[in-house]
Amino acid sequence: MNIVITVGREFGSGGRELARKLAEYKGFAYYDNEVLTEIVKQTELSEKYVNEVLEGANSRVYSAGSENTLSYGMDYSLTQLQEIYGAQTEVIKALALKSDCVIVGRCADYILKDVEGIQLFRVFIHADLDARVKRCIDRAHEGEDTNEKIMRKKVQKVDRNRARYYEDYTLQEWGDKSNYDICFNTTNMDIDAMIPHIAKLFE
Amino acid sequence: MNIVITVGREFGSGGRELARKLAEYKGFAYYDNEVLTEIVKQTELSEKYVNEVLEGANSRVYSAGSENTLSYGMDYSLTQLQEIYGAQTEVIKALALKSDCVIVGRCADYILKDVEGIQLFRVFIHADLDARVKRCIDRAHEGEDTNEKIMRKKVQKVDRNRARYYEDYTLQEWGDKSNYDICFNTTNMDIDAMIPHIAKLFE
Repeated sequence: MNIVITVGREFGSGGRELARKLAEYKGFAYYDNEVLTEIVKQTELSEKYVNEVLEGANSRVYSAGSENTLSYGMDYSLTQLQEIYGAQTEVIKALALKSDCVIVGRCADYILKDVEGIQLFRVFIHADLDARVKRCIDRAHEGEDTNEKIMRKKVQKVDRNRARYYEDYTLQEWGDKSNYDICFNTTNMDIDAMIPHIAKLFE
Repeated sequence: MNIVITVGREFGSGGRELARKLAEYKGFAYYDNEVLTEIVKQTELSEKYVNEVLEGANSRVYSAGSENTLSYGMDYSLTQLQEIYGAQTEVIKALALKSDCVIVGRCADYILKDVEGIQLFRVFIHADLDARVKRCIDRAHEGEDTNEKIMRKKVQKVDRNRARYYEDYTLQEWGDKSNYDICFNTTNMDIDAMIPHIAKLFE
């Protein structure tokens, strides 16, 4: 039975690094942008557009209001949003059934939770906001504004969008510990030192 | 430097079992009711009374209302509540500084979070409500009412009281993952099989 580890993560928590290193250590397939690439192939929509939808930027399937009516952003048609989510579901299920793997984000924990024939571990990685902002500043790409206030806003915005996308499709609260098997706080964690021990939890 | 693992837990999650077995496996001291016994010794109050206060039954330091004024239950004097919390703080700090140990509940995660000279790991154990109710029914003591509805209410009440006591004293949300280093969901976990792997995380 394939072991499938899904990794949800707060922006700047080191969740992606942990996921990648965990996959390397265990010799598992690692899927992050590969999910995006596959969805683009299947839907024939542009990569930029699909990525924006997956990151929750400007997309909204259900309105935030009390009436729960269907609505969508100016630039997105509901049909396309549904097409993308359909492809996302298919791609993630196919990857999970292919081999042992680690899948980052993209509602994989929710999409896979009732899939038979896999052993699923749902992991969420988080850290204090200050630690996440510091991490983002330390690892800023060339030309990125590393002003502390601006970075803090960016981190919060990315998380808000991820939470919105997740909650729209799963009707669950993003990051709610009850939807995960293990939650790690990386604020005081040495990720490299912990990988061999964390890896043992998924056997 | 002493390794100190604090274990907060939802009622019926197996958190106490996990904590005890983890301490045994690591050869660490294990403190659960020992904290209660020590507080009773220091305060010279009755064990029943101290236990009720620690489990959040009928005690309330701050009112739940918006005014945040001091209030207290009929049977408890504010002085006694403060005396108990003072003793609890002293007892837990002394235990943490004595040797490597596992401490269950009693706000130990909060009390120890800024203590120097220890390596602190804050763990929280939770599980789905159905799983917790089932566990409580399976392990009911002789004469306990194992009616599913009654047990469900009991589980929820114990947690409500624990949450209230924790939040009154720490001003933090009980079970909020950001206050812990690791949260384990035991719903699908074989605790015995996982102990050797979990133990490796705390070194």
